[in-house]
Amino acid sequence: MIIVMKPEASQDDVNQILARIEAKGLKPLHMPGAERVVLGALGDERILAELDLEAEPQVESVKPILAPYKLVSRELHPHDTLVRIGNATFGGGRFGLIAGPCAVETETQIMASAKAAKAAGATVLRAGAYKPRTSPYAFQGHGPDALVLLAEVGREVGLPVVTEVIESGDVELVARHADALQVGARNMQNFALLKAVGRAGKPVVLKRGMSAKIEDLLLAAEYVLAAGNDQLILCERGIRTFETATRNTLDLAAVPLLKAKSHLPVIVDPSHGTGIRDLVIPMALAAAAAGADGVMVEVHVDPPSALSDGPQSLYPDQMLALGKQLEALLVALGRSL
Amino acid sequence: MIIVMKPEASQDDVNQILARIEAKGLKPLHMPGAERVVLGALGDERILAELDLEAEPQVESVKPILAPYKLVSRELHPHDTLVRIGNATFGGGRFGLIAGPCAVETETQIMASAKAAKAAGATVLRAGAYKPRTSPYAFQGHGPDALVLLAEVGREVGLPVVTEVIESGDVELVARHADALQVGARNMQNFALLKAVGRAGKPVVLKRGMSAKIEDLLLAAEYVLAAGNDQLILCERGIRTFETATRNTLDLAAVPLLKAKSHLPVIVDPSHGTGIRDLVIPMALAAAAAGADGVMVEVHVDPPSALSDGPQSLYPDQMLALGKQLEALLVALGRSL
Amino acid sequence: MIIVMKPEASQDDVNQILARIEAKGLKPLHMPGAERVVLGALGDERILAELDLEAEPQVESVKPILAPYKLVSRELHPHDTLVRIGNATFGGGRFGLIAGPCAVETETQIMASAKAAKAAGATVLRAGAYKPRTSPYAFQGHGPDALVLLAEVGREVGLPVVTEVIESGDVELVARHADALQVGARNMQNFALLKAVGRAGKPVVLKRGMSAKIEDLLLAAEYVLAAGNDQLILCERGIRTFETATRNTLDLAAVPLLKAKSHLPVIVDPSHGTGIRDLVIPMALAAAAAGADGVMVEVHVDPPSALSDGPQSLYPDQMLALGKQLEALLVALGRSL
Amino acid sequence: MIIVMKPEASQDDVNQILARIEAKGLKPLHMPGAERVVLGALGDERILAELDLEAEPQVESVKPILAPYKLVSRELHPHDTLVRIGNATFGGGRFGLIAGPCAVETETQIMASAKAAKAAGATVLRAGAYKPRTSPYAFQGHGPDALVLLAEVGREVGLPVVTEVIESGDVELVARHADALQVGARNMQNFALLKAVGRAGKPVVLKRGMSAKIEDLLLAAEYVLAAGNDQLILCERGIRTFETATRNTLDLAAVPLLKAKSHLPVIVDPSHGTGIRDLVIPMALAAAAAGADGVMVEVHVDPPSALSDGPQSLYPDQMLALGKQLEALLVALGRSL
Repeated sequence: MIIVMKPEASQDDVNQILARIEAKGLKPLHMPGAERVVLGALGDERILAELDLEAEPQVESVKPILAPYKLVSRELHPHDTLVRIGNATFGGGRFGLIAGPCAVETETQIMASAKAAKAAGATVLRAGAYKPRTSPYAFQGHGPDALVLLAEVGREVGLPVVTEVIESGDVELVARHADALQVGARNMQNFALLKAVGRAGKPVVLKRGMSAKIEDLLLAAEYVLAAGNDQLILCERGIRTFETATRNTLDLAAVPLLKAKSHLPVIVDPSHGTGIRDLVIPMALAAAAAGADGVMVEVHVDPPSALSDGPQSLYPDQMLALGKQLEALLVALGRSL
Repeated sequence: MIIVMKPEASQDDVNQILARIEAKGLKPLHMPGAERVVLGALGDERILAELDLEAEPQVESVKPILAPYKLVSRELHPHDTLVRIGNATFGGGRFGLIAGPCAVETETQIMASAKAAKAAGATVLRAGAYKPRTSPYAFQGHGPDALVLLAEVGREVGLPVVTEVIESGDVELVARHADALQVGARNMQNFALLKAVGRAGKPVVLKRGMSAKIEDLLLAAEYVLAAGNDQLILCERGIRTFETATRNTLDLAAVPLLKAKSHLPVIVDPSHGTGIRDLVIPMALAAAAAGADGVMVEVHVDPPSALSDGPQSLYPDQMLALGKQLEALLVALGRSL
Repeated sequence: MIIVMKPEASQDDVNQILARIEAKGLKPLHMPGAERVVLGALGDERILAELDLEAEPQVESVKPILAPYKLVSRELHPHDTLVRIGNATFGGGRFGLIAGPCAVETETQIMASAKAAKAAGATVLRAGAYKPRTSPYAFQGHGPDALVLLAEVGREVGLPVVTEVIESGDVELVARHADALQVGARNMQNFALLKAVGRAGKPVVLKRGMSAKIEDLLLAAEYVLAAGNDQLILCERGIRTFETATRNTLDLAAVPLLKAKSHLPVIVDPSHGTGIRDLVIPMALAAAAAGADGVMVEVHVDPPSALSDGPQSLYPDQMLALGKQLEALLVALGRSL
Repeated sequence: MIIVMKPEASQDDVNQILARIEAKGLKPLHMPGAERVVLGALGDERILAELDLEAEPQVESVKPILAPYKLVSRELHPHDTLVRIGNATFGGGRFGLIAGPCAVETETQIMASAKAAKAAGATVLRAGAYKPRTSPYAFQGHGPDALVLLAEVGREVGLPVVTEVIESGDVELVARHADALQVGARNMQNFALLKAVGRAGKPVVLKRGMSAKIEDLLLAAEYVLAAGNDQLILCERGIRTFETATRNTLDLAAVPLLKAKSHLPVIVDPSHGTGIRDLVIPMALAAAAAGADGVMVEVHVDPPSALSDGPQSLYPDQMLALGKQLEALLVALGRSL
């Protein structure tokens, strides 16, 4: 429920309403704006109906939040939320470029790949320490050692780092080393993990599940925001369809649709979204043209030797080309990297 | 089979090889290039193997066409094919903008909508006379009368027209009135229709079927080319997936993928691809950024009154905005409308 | 609109109502039942509203047909429709077994395959004369010669025949030779073809399209019934999904769902539905257990030599086993082959 | 790698081979059979190649395991694995019936629902204590209290219980109260959870993910077996497709396909697989006819009041009818409940 206060409402009036919401066992929200204060109340609809705030003299209007997701919805929060990872900003017209290898393999590999990302204009470094793999016999990541290495390399090249966390028990450790936490597509509905990253106090990149509808993704994000963290970036990375010519089907229409429904920034991962190196640059440009707040791409100093995702990783010179083309495109659209 | 002749091969040598191919009951192809002549031979693989052209002194090399589609493949035809509809050109770096209402409804409606398209920079006018509709009780188009009206309006506003044909028996009539023939998504594997439009001598816009893989689309195009018509434009218009927030899932990665596999121009229909008016402009821009050779959009002088596809039709002022934004984007990418 | 007459209504009363319906330009339907007469009126909803039949003294009740498909709906026609192909009956508890090779290849092949089908208890023989193929270079069927041969073999083994028609222009010829017409999955929304088979006066087997929703299939059937033919069998044959281990995903839940929504018989094609020979028998049994009114399977005297669909064709001894197992299962379910 | 010993091989010979496998850092497997001993070796393919066991005099043959899943594959383990939950047996021709409400709601509700399940012939009781829900505001289960209650009710009605675990940290607690652990569709690729249930020493029911291919499901099972637990039942519960008339598309062809590829028992959940109460009985029967080793259905003493999954829960009298029909069908197929 959204409660718009009258312009003349005092802080006392506001506090009184918030107290009434809380007294009913509902969750109160306080959103002071330039012109007037907007309050929110979340919880059981029958109890919300009992609040009867329309009758309050300092309340201008009350309306329900129609979307099943509340905190995530633009209904409640009309302005763009800006998410900051280190010095990089996503949302509100700002575009972020996240790049790096699929996994931290060796010190040489991660350092060279990070430099390639940085040289191309990346604003955040990505690489995996824990890799969720379809087969138990596939490379599962180097774990805690990789976390330490990634953090060191990030400091050295001057980029904040984002890395995936795959279990709620690991959240604290990963949050100690990384600037942002990634929840992968396979874990988008691992609700225990979502709650844990919601409590961790670090920005979150939440990837859309392979069979997640737009609404499922927004409800997954709602778990994180409901746990107290609104520094969340939504990431479209392709859905599973009948088409086998690409690894997934990148659903770029999700970008303007998500941005219409939610105030959260939306980025695109064209590497997993296509699985084919030569499609990464055109799809990254397309994502920017569709209004994305950033892209996340895989780059590797030597893709053929990569322990995972080699076929979809850019070569360093392709990464450079991507940076330049993205910049030209963003300028044409009145934006900037 | 692709046969590359030596630079010094004479026309006589070429003719001799072509005659040998034909004598075996195979289809010979003659593709003279700037530096050397390339020949093709299509047909049963066992007979191809019997040709034994490697032994010919004027033949430099012989290689099989690996793709199941042959005439459509870039293997056989490395350069972009340019398709011309009236004065509009698609392919080879040229971008075409096809616009118009879903259907020809009334003279006033089609004229006003056509002018809105023209004003925004459209190079081809689209509108349906025959509408394939899921329900037998839905508006099925005004048929032959609509064809005549569309042609008149096209002449008056100075735009060539493309319109859908839904049955092989109608191809001749539609080809008499239209500058290009459209084969719709539901008919992409109506092979009788594909053969008929292949023989009609008019450019064809072939839309991808709702459940067609990339390869299915290219093989459907092969039916048209095999019938003697290489003036064909491939059109991505969204596939059917589990996502219901949009009418279809627009598969923009298909654009660079199709262009890698085929020499034919590729355009995108963001109106059917999304089904939502507000997503049409961002997805049209994304299509251009992904490398499409054009877009096809629905515009209607009064969308709420449209007999079909109202919710996905642009208003005239949105159409104007699209034209301007497309131009800015294409310039930034070093191309032009 | 469904109009239930009072038990005491006379034939004159009925005729009068039918005349009023017709006078409004609507389509009148007459469905005499054991206890009372039910009438129907189809057409534009606004005109239906003007009829005002509730006020008629001999009319007991009037209710709208809610489904977008009308003639096909159980709302209008609560009892099962029985469809007869030769002596075989589908629907109303009767189970039909359609079997035969994918295509008519040679006289020896079709005769031996037909005998294998007959020996296993098949009640209808199937085989294709016209094959809609994804590639223009694949075997397209032997056409009119195959039609003649199929009809002869059917007579000789004593089985009615069903065969696919792929173009409205061929309907008359195919109807002359076959006992029933099949509309294939790729043509499920070839509306010109649906109208033509609706007018042909022969039973129709309508296969679900690869990306057709249940409602799309019922609306496609509505085209045939609206053209005057209610001898139509719906056929589930698998839909296209992300799963690639089978050729299609056989949607058996469609069987009880279609039977709840429509009075038409529903059969299942487990050969195309799976594409794998060893899955055909279990899925045919599952179809019967799910309540299907029949199955259609591919059997070939020598599957490895088949010109099409060899990997999904049963061997004659598997066909025999299927017949026996189906019979045992149907008996257990209180039904019979 | 599969190593078949000669019939005359002694226990010493076998031990020697096992020691050589282990010495290389590979995982040795010992599978004594009626006629001869079969050994296995799992691990890095390059090291496997170095073993050179073909040269051993007591080794009859050596062949690679082609499937990416090893322990799960029938290649390595040709006979059916029997899984026992309490007195219920799944696999090897034995059919198990798991029934119960979606969630433990109240003592009255779970007791009455359990009695309805038992009366209908259920052999295992199911009910959720932890509910993974798409929305954070939906009922999430009563947690530990529900676990205790479920165990008590199971003892009282005389049925073993299976319940879902959604986080690796909860596995120990759930395993203390339940006879079997269920991993839900959303967690099928929660690899931390799979490893934890693999170590828990209780039978596991592993549900197929909404967008999981057959191979993905088998590889997820491989995680559990690789952690030391081969008491695992695979459960088909519907996949996500474009069809919206049912909650999911139940892929029954997965049953014979999984049983061909793996020795593990396969059951079907027609409740989640369809989401529609009236489709549950036909699809449960179809599952049995397709060769499933059991079904898992939702039954609730009062479905309209259910806190979750009401529309797909059977009424007690429907549950009774299902039990009787299943029994008749299984008898006809030469099997028994």
